[in-house]
Amino acid sequence: MMTAGETARVLVQALPYVYRFAGKVVVVKLGGAAIDAELDRALAQDVLLLRSVGVRCVLVHGGGPQVDAMMRRVGKEPEFRGGLRVTDAETLELVRMVLVGKINRDLVGTINREAIEEPVAVGVSGEDAGMLVVAPRESALGFVGDVSHVRTSVLHRLLNEGLTPVVSTIGADEGGQPYNVNADEAARAIAVAMGAEKIVYLTAAPGLLENVEDESSLVRRITSNELRERIQHESVSRGMIPKLRACADSVDGGVRTAHIIDGRVPHALLIELLTDEGIGTMVKREADW
Amino acid sequence: MMTAGETARVLVQALPYVYRFAGKVVVVKLGGAAIDAELDRALAQDVLLLRSVGVRCVLVHGGGPQVDAMMRRVGKEPEFRGGLRVTDAETLELVRMVLVGKINRDLVGTINREAIEEPVAVGVSGEDAGMLVVAPRESALGFVGDVSHVRTSVLHRLLNEGLTPVVSTIGADEGGQPYNVNADEAARAIAVAMGAEKIVYLTAAPGLLENVEDESSLVRRITSNELRERIQHESVSRGMIPKLRACADSVDGGVRTAHIIDGRVPHALLIELLTDEGIGTMVKREADW
Amino acid sequence: MMTAGETARVLVQALPYVYRFAGKVVVVKLGGAAIDAELDRALAQDVLLLRSVGVRCVLVHGGGPQVDAMMRRVGKEPEFRGGLRVTDAETLELVRMVLVGKINRDLVGTINREAIEEPVAVGVSGEDAGMLVVAPRESALGFVGDVSHVRTSVLHRLLNEGLTPVVSTIGADEGGQPYNVNADEAARAIAVAMGAEKIVYLTAAPGLLENVEDESSLVRRITSNELRERIQHESVSRGMIPKLRACADSVDGGVRTAHIIDGRVPHALLIELLTDEGIGTMVKREADW
Amino acid sequence: MMTAGETARVLVQALPYVYRFAGKVVVVKLGGAAIDAELDRALAQDVLLLRSVGVRCVLVHGGGPQVDAMMRRVGKEPEFRGGLRVTDAETLELVRMVLVGKINRDLVGTINREAIEEPVAVGVSGEDAGMLVVAPRESALGFVGDVSHVRTSVLHRLLNEGLTPVVSTIGADEGGQPYNVNADEAARAIAVAMGAEKIVYLTAAPGLLENVEDESSLVRRITSNELRERIQHESVSRGMIPKLRACADSVDGGVRTAHIIDGRVPHALLIELLTDEGIGTMVKREADW
Amino acid sequence: MMTAGETARVLVQALPYVYRFAGKVVVVKLGGAAIDAELDRALAQDVLLLRSVGVRCVLVHGGGPQVDAMMRRVGKEPEFRGGLRVTDAETLELVRMVLVGKINRDLVGTINREAIEEPVAVGVSGEDAGMLVVAPRESALGFVGDVSHVRTSVLHRLLNEGLTPVVSTIGADEGGQPYNVNADEAARAIAVAMGAEKIVYLTAAPGLLENVEDESSLVRRITSNELRERIQHESVSRGMIPKLRACADSVDGGVRTAHIIDGRVPHALLIELLTDEGIGTMVKREADW
Amino acid sequence: MMTAGETARVLVQALPYVYRFAGKVVVVKLGGAAIDAELDRALAQDVLLLRSVGVRCVLVHGGGPQVDAMMRRVGKEPEFRGGLRVTDAETLELVRMVLVGKINRDLVGTINREAIEEPVAVGVSGEDAGMLVVAPRESALGFVGDVSHVRTSVLHRLLNEGLTPVVSTIGADEGGQPYNVNADEAARAIAVAMGAEKIVYLTAAPGLLENVEDESSLVRRITSNELRERIQHESVSRGMIPKLRACADSVDGGVRTAHIIDGRVPHALLIELLTDEGIGTMVKREADW
Repeated sequence: MMTAGETARVLVQALPYVYRFAGKVVVVKLGGAAIDAELDRALAQDVLLLRSVGVRCVLVHGGGPQVDAMMRRVGKEPEFRGGLRVTDAETLELVRMVLVGKINRDLVGTINREAIEEPVAVGVSGEDAGMLVVAPRESALGFVGDVSHVRTSVLHRLLNEGLTPVVSTIGADEGGQPYNVNADEAARAIAVAMGAEKIVYLTAAPGLLENVEDESSLVRRITSNELRERIQHESVSRGMIPKLRACADSVDGGVRTAHIIDGRVPHALLIELLTDEGIGTMVKREADW
Repeated sequence: MMTAGETARVLVQALPYVYRFAGKVVVVKLGGAAIDAELDRALAQDVLLLRSVGVRCVLVHGGGPQVDAMMRRVGKEPEFRGGLRVTDAETLELVRMVLVGKINRDLVGTINREAIEEPVAVGVSGEDAGMLVVAPRESALGFVGDVSHVRTSVLHRLLNEGLTPVVSTIGADEGGQPYNVNADEAARAIAVAMGAEKIVYLTAAPGLLENVEDESSLVRRITSNELRERIQHESVSRGMIPKLRACADSVDGGVRTAHIIDGRVPHALLIELLTDEGIGTMVKREADW
Repeated sequence: MMTAGETARVLVQALPYVYRFAGKVVVVKLGGAAIDAELDRALAQDVLLLRSVGVRCVLVHGGGPQVDAMMRRVGKEPEFRGGLRVTDAETLELVRMVLVGKINRDLVGTINREAIEEPVAVGVSGEDAGMLVVAPRESALGFVGDVSHVRTSVLHRLLNEGLTPVVSTIGADEGGQPYNVNADEAARAIAVAMGAEKIVYLTAAPGLLENVEDESSLVRRITSNELRERIQHESVSRGMIPKLRACADSVDGGVRTAHIIDGRVPHALLIELLTDEGIGTMVKREADW
Repeated sequence: MMTAGETARVLVQALPYVYRFAGKVVVVKLGGAAIDAELDRALAQDVLLLRSVGVRCVLVHGGGPQVDAMMRRVGKEPEFRGGLRVTDAETLELVRMVLVGKINRDLVGTINREAIEEPVAVGVSGEDAGMLVVAPRESALGFVGDVSHVRTSVLHRLLNEGLTPVVSTIGADEGGQPYNVNADEAARAIAVAMGAEKIVYLTAAPGLLENVEDESSLVRRITSNELRERIQHESVSRGMIPKLRACADSVDGGVRTAHIIDGRVPHALLIELLTDEGIGTMVKREADW
Repeated sequence: MMTAGETARVLVQALPYVYRFAGKVVVVKLGGAAIDAELDRALAQDVLLLRSVGVRCVLVHGGGPQVDAMMRRVGKEPEFRGGLRVTDAETLELVRMVLVGKINRDLVGTINREAIEEPVAVGVSGEDAGMLVVAPRESALGFVGDVSHVRTSVLHRLLNEGLTPVVSTIGADEGGQPYNVNADEAARAIAVAMGAEKIVYLTAAPGLLENVEDESSLVRRITSNELRERIQHESVSRGMIPKLRACADSVDGGVRTAHIIDGRVPHALLIELLTDEGIGTMVKREADW
Repeated sequence: MMTAGETARVLVQALPYVYRFAGKVVVVKLGGAAIDAELDRALAQDVLLLRSVGVRCVLVHGGGPQVDAMMRRVGKEPEFRGGLRVTDAETLELVRMVLVGKINRDLVGTINREAIEEPVAVGVSGEDAGMLVVAPRESALGFVGDVSHVRTSVLHRLLNEGLTPVVSTIGADEGGQPYNVNADEAARAIAVAMGAEKIVYLTAAPGLLENVEDESSLVRRITSNELRERIQHESVSRGMIPKLRACADSVDGGVRTAHIIDGRVPHALLIELLTDEGIGTMVKREADW
């Protein structure tokens, strides 16, 4: 049981953050890996609670494992080169169906089921209104693209109307040809283009660890330069590198802070945003904590 | 070669329609059957031209054949009862993937490729922001629903921003469970709920025919009562009945006119809307032609 | 009888012009010479149709022959010097009465009779709200002035309210003394000051002709420089020179295009504005057709 | 030389009227009889001063004597029946030329010459934007009409823009045929339709007199009922009757007060409006002075 | 040290209240009894934090003890009748000086010192802009009045501008004579007139107690009817009666909830408003907790 | 009895001033010396009349004698050094109580009693919303401060809402400590910071006199430079110097004109503002009368 003093301390800490983040954009990147339904519900609640006090969340999702499953179901073997999916025309169509037609739908459904008044989640693909403009990465990979430009207006418009966009990261080149885009990268590009206050990566780890073996060795705050040094010296978990690099790129691109938090802790998003301490790792450009 | 007089006559006829339809909503229902790419382009151009002079088009699409193909690809045999697809949970997921993740995407892509300035098409599913609220039809059909309510705000908002919504007809019940919805019916429900000026069904016939055998026996104008009588007396093509009934229901529900036109004629939509004569069949509540 | 394809072609051509000219100002100069009542009605219809789709037409009229008739009626002989009317105080009063109190009234009446909903034409004299500020040309001519400044606000205000101004070209100097102003010149000054999209001169010829003798030798497009050269080399109809010069001055002053069209062809204005080909001569600053 | 106390008294009286009349419409009717240039200037100043503190003056003018002169100049003899001008088509054209093309112009010119910053007067005829809708009075009179409806929007729009309308009383019937309208009557119809605060008739007398022979026997305040009784009992100057009846009709039609003042006293309009005493006769519906 | 789960619980509870109270008016009544400076600072912080998330607090203060002290300082003995201060003209002047010129000033100063960006507190007396209109209570009490009407506009205006009004409860009758008004009553009248969401009375007790002797016997929720019954049966602390009655009157007058909380607990206001449990007693009209 | 011509002259003069000063800020400084109740009423009327025609008056008051009286009443002897009140903490509290809690209240009351529709006066202290930011003058004087910055927004907001602020000149330093501020100086600082059109000092003299002995030797107009010279050469009344200096500083700081007028003449404010001649002394930066 908490005392009045403890309760007051949480409230006195939280309100200035509520004030500061009201009207600001927060991009939240979720993995596509199967997530516990309870955790999904807690995340949906966090997004809805933040929205209720004016925070403008944009959700961006990936979906590698589900794409693999679908491909195998229609008798195609997934193929990767340098960690990236080789994407021929048929694969692209399957990726698009799974991301836009299944994972995005499920997320939209979860948020809308948790919404108290009206459903507010709206699925968006990067092709809609030409949101994600891409250039092909390399011919050997097929239809895999890099984001060259983000048309943010449709996202701003939905947010202005009180809606919460859930983004699938299929883009299109200027001629209208669709491409598969890495979701961590797309989230960063969106956050930078929208002038987001924050980008938050939900992972299956507490955040950046001093010692990869020790989950209690959490690095709470780090500048983008320090982070780049650690990446270069390989003193970080290998699997974490793309997210860490996206964090550094985000804050150097103008996002005020980037966060890596533990998607396995219920309401981690709320705690990270509204307490002084936070729960994961926060990346900033300058060490002006 | 047209004379100045002929050209003037088309212009003098067209401008009052342009004036009258500016700011009005026109719902256009397309089939999911494979359509010729040239025709698709001409339709996309019509929608974009109408949009440029202020007509607010909403596209609604179906997709039966493509769903069948996908089901067979993953080894499932489509099953129908009374013309409606029996839809278990797995089928529903496939329907949703094909409609939202493939057909909708292709239409959005075609329109965006034809757009001269910025891409304007945006895919929307009936689940987004709880747009299509449905009730289950009958348990034997599984997840097949009827539209009980349409939340039109997301469509109005997109149109207000100059965007063109392309709607897939997946809905959800109040608890958030998704359902498959018949596209002709969904188009009607949307048109009525939006207070549309027109609903236009693109078909593979010239319109309603006096004599089903004779394509030149086109009925140009008919009231909803006359139409219901013909349906009752079965003096119409059997396959046309659902669309004809949807036309009668639309105008009785407040849509000013319903149209059945020939999707095989390039720019049929433009001709139907902007000439005195039109090109297909127009249904109105009262015979005040 | 036109085919669906021909009709579609006119519509597909016209709509982009409707879109492009919506909200733009088009100044139309009419002569004062007696015009056929049917033609007047067709012109009034064109102006009303263009207005209905957002084109902001301003009509400017002259009236030489009618002034001559009135002068003779009260026993005064018209006198000209270098093509310009010698205008003493009494003549000025007669000019003003005929232009403002008769020709302007008749035009306002014709348009208001053709208007479908509410009358929209409003007569304006250059003296109203100090619209046309003039300086005297030369003392021998008496009260003949050149426009030195245009106060466009009253015209913009009327247009903003959906009204169609019909302008008589009486101006006043800074001290409030009225002057007679050449209507071709006044139309140009108004078009330039309003930042008009177009200025259109209605004449009794098809436009600028390669060969003055041959009405079929129409020059469809010409730059202002080429036009000035032809004027200098006197390879144009003498009577056309003031209008041609006004066209060149208009586009060099910032009006996007100037047009000379045949006022004897019904709906010539509509055809000139809304087809690729047009019907008369179009003058532009640069040859970027 | 006035004392501080006397000056203060005028100011203390005037400011509440300035406050009360700000934003209100005051219709001022002037005769067409030749007026002294100095008086014209003083009236123009009054209108401009009132405008500067927010009073929305509309001027309405007549012009009988000038029409007579013009008719005689072109060899036509004016003809009257029951005090009304017999108006055939040719006469109508002359009336219109003189009112719209001469008297209106001169008034607009005088006001614009007195304006300190920008010219603000704008001439309007009752035909413009269909402002004065009339019905013919009786066939024997030809084109003489009674106002059946006033479209006030063009007047309100000009006033909203800070402009001062000067109205010539030519109207048109629904088919667009112009008619001559009595100016006293037209002024009343305009005042009633605009919901004016006041209508003021400038005359060549101090106002309504108890004793027609005695200019000092001015009636300062009278109700519309009392006024109607006096008219019925013929205890008023015969020539004044139309104006008196128009006053009674105005206040019974909703105008708050009607005034008859002496147009021969400089600044009579200002004194009537801004002092407790006034200078002429004020008519009100109720005796709530 | 709180766990992540405990912290999340406070946040998950608080945000819906923040959302619900944003833009709502909360009237907070403080006593005039000497309060600990630390508590004053905590209260000022609460008001500023609530303001930062959109809650529109209005502070109302009393000041009995300080008035007594001032009276004695100038040699006047305070006199009471039925718990109300007998207020002659001289006493009124002293009351006004102490409330408006001292206590109000000190509160404004404390809040402005705590404000992080700009000072936001503004002192207001009930006489300003005729805010508190009063009627005399009984002649024996002198200038003691009851609020008969509240002009809320000045309070709404200040709140609209982001300012926080601090109200002294001096009112004036319609003739402008000032009166002393009981602060508990004035707070209620203001809350009712503003359509406040809440009225909160800060006291030197935990709230309403089941057993007056036992501070732990707090009644957390009660309806206005139950409260009135307890008052009637005198089962409440005598000194608490005026506040309890004001609470019942407030909610019956339309304020959604009334609260009595312990002014001696730091941040009691924040805890009462933003937790499910609260800290004091909440009064509602209906038992729809 | 005034003639029509004399009345017209006052009106014709006054209206352009009404027009020119509408929407402009006029700061009026009153002394705290006992003033005749009738004069107070006339002044309140002037302020209300000016407000009714759009002049935005801000009243600033002093109150030396009343402070002295209060101090003596509680047994403290006022002490001055160089004309300034030595202000210890206890004195400051008394000054504040008298200015904010008594004189300001009385002025607010007088204006609200004269107001015809709603009460409009609102008392403001320089501490409210941090309006008057001060720095201490010299330690020997205690809490006597000079205005270093004015936060004008609360004054502009009240004026925007049609309210009339009455300002007591207590300020606070950045840390929130209150200070006593000279009212002549505070009025100047407020006028300069608000970009006032005028500052008017009400005094017990006709204005600046050529010959101090001769009340008829009024200087009607003077530039700030000439005024500074006279101050330097001591050719002015000694007691007038602070006000004269404040006048010169005001106009050099951007206020268009400063005025010294005779508070003993009823409606002096109105006469000074709305007649060509005025009643007192007007100071301007340049001699462009």
